[in-house]
Amino acid sequence: MSLNEFEIIKNYFQPIEGSRSDVKMGIGDDAAVVLPPPGQRLVMAIDTLVAGIHFPQQTTPYDIGYKALAVNLSDLAAMGAEPSWVLLALTLPEADEAWLKKFCAGLNHLLHEYRLQLIGGDTTRGPLTITIQTCGFLPLDKGLFRNGAKPGDLIFVTGDLGDAGLALSFLQNQVSIPVSDQETILQRFNRPTPRVPEGLWLRDIASAAIDISDGLAADLGHVLQASGVGATLKLQDLPLSSVMKKTVNEQHAWELALTAGDDYELCFTIPATQRTYVERIFAEKFTTRCQCIGVIEEKLGLRLINPTGDFFQLSNKGYTHFG
Amino acid sequence: MSLNEFEIIKNYFQPIEGSRSDVKMGIGDDAAVVLPPPGQRLVMAIDTLVAGIHFPQQTTPYDIGYKALAVNLSDLAAMGAEPSWVLLALTLPEADEAWLKKFCAGLNHLLHEYRLQLIGGDTTRGPLTITIQTCGFLPLDKGLFRNGAKPGDLIFVTGDLGDAGLALSFLQNQVSIPVSDQETILQRFNRPTPRVPEGLWLRDIASAAIDISDGLAADLGHVLQASGVGATLKLQDLPLSSVMKKTVNEQHAWELALTAGDDYELCFTIPATQRTYVERIFAEKFTTRCQCIGVIEEKLGLRLINPTGDFFQLSNKGYTHFG
Repeated sequence: MSLNEFEIIKNYFQPIEGSRSDVKMGIGDDAAVVLPPPGQRLVMAIDTLVAGIHFPQQTTPYDIGYKALAVNLSDLAAMGAEPSWVLLALTLPEADEAWLKKFCAGLNHLLHEYRLQLIGGDTTRGPLTITIQTCGFLPLDKGLFRNGAKPGDLIFVTGDLGDAGLALSFLQNQVSIPVSDQETILQRFNRPTPRVPEGLWLRDIASAAIDISDGLAADLGHVLQASGVGATLKLQDLPLSSVMKKTVNEQHAWELALTAGDDYELCFTIPATQRTYVERIFAEKFTTRCQCIGVIEEKLGLRLINPTGDFFQLSNKGYTHFG
Repeated sequence: MSLNEFEIIKNYFQPIEGSRSDVKMGIGDDAAVVLPPPGQRLVMAIDTLVAGIHFPQQTTPYDIGYKALAVNLSDLAAMGAEPSWVLLALTLPEADEAWLKKFCAGLNHLLHEYRLQLIGGDTTRGPLTITIQTCGFLPLDKGLFRNGAKPGDLIFVTGDLGDAGLALSFLQNQVSIPVSDQETILQRFNRPTPRVPEGLWLRDIASAAIDISDGLAADLGHVLQASGVGATLKLQDLPLSSVMKKTVNEQHAWELALTAGDDYELCFTIPATQRTYVERIFAEKFTTRCQCIGVIEEKLGLRLINPTGDFFQLSNKGYTHFG
């Protein structure tokens, strides 16, 4: 017999709920009740993943649960916020218990890692769609915004770029990847690491930040537009993984790094005087590296310089819905 | 040419955003930043409407926008919370500008009425699905919960019951309704009135409350279960609209009142000593009436008494997904 939504909530979501002291009423009433910490602002993000659009239909339920929360946490990381509470709106074609169990395990992986609480949600029947809303805390005088980049600031990114796009190309049979590297690259696509600790630290340093969900060129473009500035990037400085380097040629790698979505790395700007400090702290404190890729300039627009010193033209500008 | 999601946000959602002073960063960054009022708890609800499941495919975009927010506000009303901020995750099959314009008008109707701010969201491509997440405020020592009903408490509902179910039956050609009444009854289905002011007042009075979204029997059942009590309802006291009374027979009307979803009225319990006070305040202060329909009892279960004094058996128990 099929479970109804109340049984789904009781059997699958309540067991992974969590027990934060700031949650006064979690799953089980008309709404959740939480107590925000005094002297903090709240940061709120919402993201939807649609089957077949945001992840291939064959994606495992574990990875779907993981990724639906990871992309939200990436938004909070890009604001410099400390994540706290999670709401889940899950639309499912059928109450498949094996699917639900694995989905919850993936979700719980990140809930547990960041000591988050699943405080409520809504479970409905329909085409597979996962919407997660996440809250986080931000001290009154802190935060990372898109509009603070200034001419002369250096542009950094965390991690390697384009791996998720490479994985998608592999899943679509457009590139071949050595068997020994396939798992690594698929993990980058299915289980992005939200850069939460990096964002928390950067909120004292960076002049602007965004997470790279639609490709570096598009997302850096939002920073440039919001800040009223331009930028020049050096393509040879784009951080590329070893798998990327041995799988596709340099030009293809740059295209992926600049335009492929789903990296969920941070792109941030800092005053040039902070460069050594930022590079040292990343080397000492974080597991991911950071890389300076360019500079903010007064002149509007995004300029890409290849190793010969010529301008490089992108063949597309990144993923857009309805584009 | 089709709009991309950034153009949709700029052309349709930013214009209806609002301008509350407690919103520090609204639409346009990775996440919204808000400042919760000191000394208040936050109440957070999330609800999804799926086309063809929660509303018929032919529903107007205005009504979809209205209802998606109304059902969320109804959840906050049932907690006694004062609504404040709204996040929207909209999944659309195509960027239809005429549709978006009307959807936003319906959403804006309620945003404006309750002085809410649309602080952010996510716009994606896929099967039409609307998820709204709403925040509200609740003083530290107040709130309406499901678990406070005590034996001897009286059970009340706001408004009339079953009208939305009657409208759905009409849309499905199962009942006929006089032409002059069709608009009235369809409004009850498409544009439910969230009982926000009633909930705010009741938080000082009621021992328990829930909003009726899945039918009175099912939703009162949640209160009984959470409170560890039972109840007896008198069917002749169920509030029925004049359209209901002239459209279907008494037994059919009771079935609709007890099991049809989408009423979005409040069901609440109060100490019996407060009955006269509550009835007087509703008559003086609110546009909707309230009606005492039964009593909370120690004996578990829900008993329905028809006018001859016999027990009445429901043919079904209310709407469940995956049921």
